[in-house]
Amino acid sequence: MSSQAAHPTLLIPGPIEFDDDVLMALSHPSESHVGAPFVNVFGETLSMLRQLFLSTDPSAQPFAVSGSGTLGWDFVAANLVERGEDVLVLHTGYFGDSFSTCFATYGANPTQLRAPIGSRPSLAEIEAALKEKSYKLITITHTDTSTGVLSDVKAIAELVHRVSPDTLIIVDGVCSVGCEEIRFDDWGIDVVLTASQKAIGVPAGLCILMVSGKAIERFNNRSTPPSSYFASFANWLPIMRNYEAKKPSYFATPSPQLIRGLYTSLKQITSIPMEERFAKHKEVSGVIKKAIGEMGLKQLAESPECQANGMTAIYLPEGVGAPDLLPKLLAKGVIFAGGLHKEIATKYFRFGHMGVSVMNGDLGHINKALDALRASLTEAGYKC
Amino acid sequence: MSSQAAHPTLLIPGPIEFDDDVLMALSHPSESHVGAPFVNVFGETLSMLRQLFLSTDPSAQPFAVSGSGTLGWDFVAANLVERGEDVLVLHTGYFGDSFSTCFATYGANPTQLRAPIGSRPSLAEIEAALKEKSYKLITITHTDTSTGVLSDVKAIAELVHRVSPDTLIIVDGVCSVGCEEIRFDDWGIDVVLTASQKAIGVPAGLCILMVSGKAIERFNNRSTPPSSYFASFANWLPIMRNYEAKKPSYFATPSPQLIRGLYTSLKQITSIPMEERFAKHKEVSGVIKKAIGEMGLKQLAESPECQANGMTAIYLPEGVGAPDLLPKLLAKGVIFAGGLHKEIATKYFRFGHMGVSVMNGDLGHINKALDALRASLTEAGYKC
Repeated sequence: MSSQAAHPTLLIPGPIEFDDDVLMALSHPSESHVGAPFVNVFGETLSMLRQLFLSTDPSAQPFAVSGSGTLGWDFVAANLVERGEDVLVLHTGYFGDSFSTCFATYGANPTQLRAPIGSRPSLAEIEAALKEKSYKLITITHTDTSTGVLSDVKAIAELVHRVSPDTLIIVDGVCSVGCEEIRFDDWGIDVVLTASQKAIGVPAGLCILMVSGKAIERFNNRSTPPSSYFASFANWLPIMRNYEAKKPSYFATPSPQLIRGLYTSLKQITSIPMEERFAKHKEVSGVIKKAIGEMGLKQLAESPECQANGMTAIYLPEGVGAPDLLPKLLAKGVIFAGGLHKEIATKYFRFGHMGVSVMNGDLGHINKALDALRASLTEAGYKC
Repeated sequence: MSSQAAHPTLLIPGPIEFDDDVLMALSHPSESHVGAPFVNVFGETLSMLRQLFLSTDPSAQPFAVSGSGTLGWDFVAANLVERGEDVLVLHTGYFGDSFSTCFATYGANPTQLRAPIGSRPSLAEIEAALKEKSYKLITITHTDTSTGVLSDVKAIAELVHRVSPDTLIIVDGVCSVGCEEIRFDDWGIDVVLTASQKAIGVPAGLCILMVSGKAIERFNNRSTPPSSYFASFANWLPIMRNYEAKKPSYFATPSPQLIRGLYTSLKQITSIPMEERFAKHKEVSGVIKKAIGEMGLKQLAESPECQANGMTAIYLPEGVGAPDLLPKLLAKGVIFAGGLHKEIATKYFRFGHMGVSVMNGDLGHINKALDALRASLTEAGYKC
C-alpha cells in the first residue's frame, strides 16, 4: 500500500481512503465506452451493485452515472414526483434541507419533519405525518453526514408499508451504503441513492442508484414527462439494462476509468458476506465511540441507537476551536472534517470511519487517529 | 509511455488516448475536497480553463462539474432559457436532435435549422431564421461527432451579433474544445460546453463549461428560478468562484482524482500557444483526409470547409460492412468507431484524431491507423 503511506490519512466522512488497487484501476488505459472489454466490466459492475444492496429482484435496476450523490436527488425529484405532489422529508441534519430544496426546484411540495440537532423524528411522529396527507414519497437520510445521526430505515419502511403503502420509500444512502445494513428487497425500499466516494470506496464522480420495480412502474405511469434530461430514467433505464445485459448502448459517455474503479472495489466488497462488513463497521464504530467517551467528549447524536456506524460527529470541548485542533491533527498525519450543520458548524468536528480504514486493521488508521486526537487535545490544553 | 503500448490504440471521436501522466494523476491518493492541496489544484485548473478558451474577461466563469458533456445541455436549458421561450438549434447531425429534446424537457421551444447529412445550414439560412423570431439563444454544434461536420462558429457569431444581438450564442464544443480554434472573448461567445474525454485528454466524467458575463447577467435576471437542482448556476457559480479564489466551498462533492487529471492535461496543453495546437490538429487532419481520398474513400462532410479537424467520418466502400472492417482493424491494434447518425449508421465509420495521438507524432498512432485501414480494406476485398 505504498501510496497510502505517502499522504496524511483521510478520515473525514467522505471521500474516504481508497484501496491502492482501486486507485490503480483509475489509471486504466483509454478504452471505448461501447467496446466489449468495457461493456463486460460495466455489466458485471451493475450485477455486483445488486449484491451490495442485497437485492435479487429482477424488476429492480441499479444505475451508475457520472455525477455525484446530489445528482441522485435530481433523479428522485425529476422522475418519481410530479408538479404539485406532496413529499415527506425526514430531517436529521443539513441534507434534509437540501433534498427539500431539490424537490421544490422540480415543482413538488416538500414537508419536512424535523428533529432537534442530534436526534431524529420518532416513529410516532412519522406515523402522524403520514396520516395527515397523502405523500407520493418519503425520504430518509440514512446517515446525515452533517450530524452523524442514523435513521432506522427498517422500522420506518415497516411503518410506511403499514400506514401508507402507496408512498414510495427513498433512502439517501450517500453516507451509509457499504457500511450500514441495507436490505433493499427485504425491507421493501424503492430507491437507495448514493455516491462512490464513501463506504463504497471509489473516488468521487459516480452517482449510484438502486431503484425498485414498483418505482419504475410508478415512473412509467407518470402523467407528465420527467422534468430533467440528464437525470431522466427514460434516458438511462434502457442504457443500464443494456450494459447489464452486456450490450453496448449510448445516451451520455460513461467514465470507463471510474467504472473500473467501482468494479475493483465491488469485487473486494462482495468477496465476503455483506453481514461481515456491516458487523465490522459496527464493531470499529463501537471502539471509536467508547474512546471518544473516555476522552470526555460528547457526540452530536446522543442516544446510541441513532449513532451512525460509519462516522462520528463530536462536540469540541470548551475552549478548543476547530481551527486549532484540525491543524494539530494534520501535523500528526490525520485529517478530520470540521462541522457542516449551519447552526453549530464551529462547535464540532467529524471523524469518518468507513471502508479500508475499518476493514483492514493492518493499516492502523483508527488507532493512529485516536492517538492523534488524544495528543492534539492535550496540546490544545484539554485534559483527556 | 508504457501503458500506451499495452493496449489497442483508441482512435474514436472520444474517449481519446490519454497521456500516461494524466492517467497516473487519477491514481492520486485520497484527499479532502475542501483541503488546501486540492483547493489550490482546483483553483489553478479553473484558471487554466480560461487559457484553453482564450479568455481573459474576468466577468466570464469556467466550470468543471462531475458529469458528462450531456449535462452541459441541461446547464444551458435549465439556466439560460425560461418556459415558453424560443431557441434556435443549428442541426449538423445527431447531437442537434438531442439538444432540442433537452430544451423541450425544460419547457423551451426549440426550432431546428436542418441541413442534409454532411453539410451545415448556410449563413443566409441562419440570418433568415434569426429574422423570423426573437430567439433567446442559438446553439451551434461545433463538430458534430456523428457526422464530422464542422460549423463556422466565428462567422455565425458575427452574424448573430449583427442581426440579433440579444440572442445568446451557445457552442457545443464537446468534440472541438482543445483541437478547433475557439476564441471565447474575441468571438463574443456566451457558453461553450464540453466534456473531458475528447481533445482535452482526460478520462470521461467531467462536464466543462465556459460562461460569459452576459450569460451570467441574463441568468441573474431570470423571472423564474432555474429548473434543475444539480445543473443550477445558482448552486455552482459561488462554488466555482470560491475554488478559483482558492477558498474551500461545498455544494456537491467534486472528484479530486478527475480534477487532478484535468490539471495535469491543462498544464500540458497550456505549455504551448493554443495556436500551435490548433495548427497541428489542422495539419494532421489534412494528412489523414488526403490519405482517405487517395484510398478512394468519401467523407460524410463533403466540402473541405465543413470538415472537422479532430475527426473524420468516412463512408464504407461498396461491399464492405463495419462488422467486417472494425474487427480487422482491431486485429491490427487500432480501434475506430462505427456510425452514429441514425439514418445512415451502418454506412460509415469514424476516425478520431485528437490530443496526444496528434500532438505527439512519436507515438506513431496516425500512421499506424492509416496503414491498418489500408490493409484491412484490402483484406475485405476493396482495392485502395
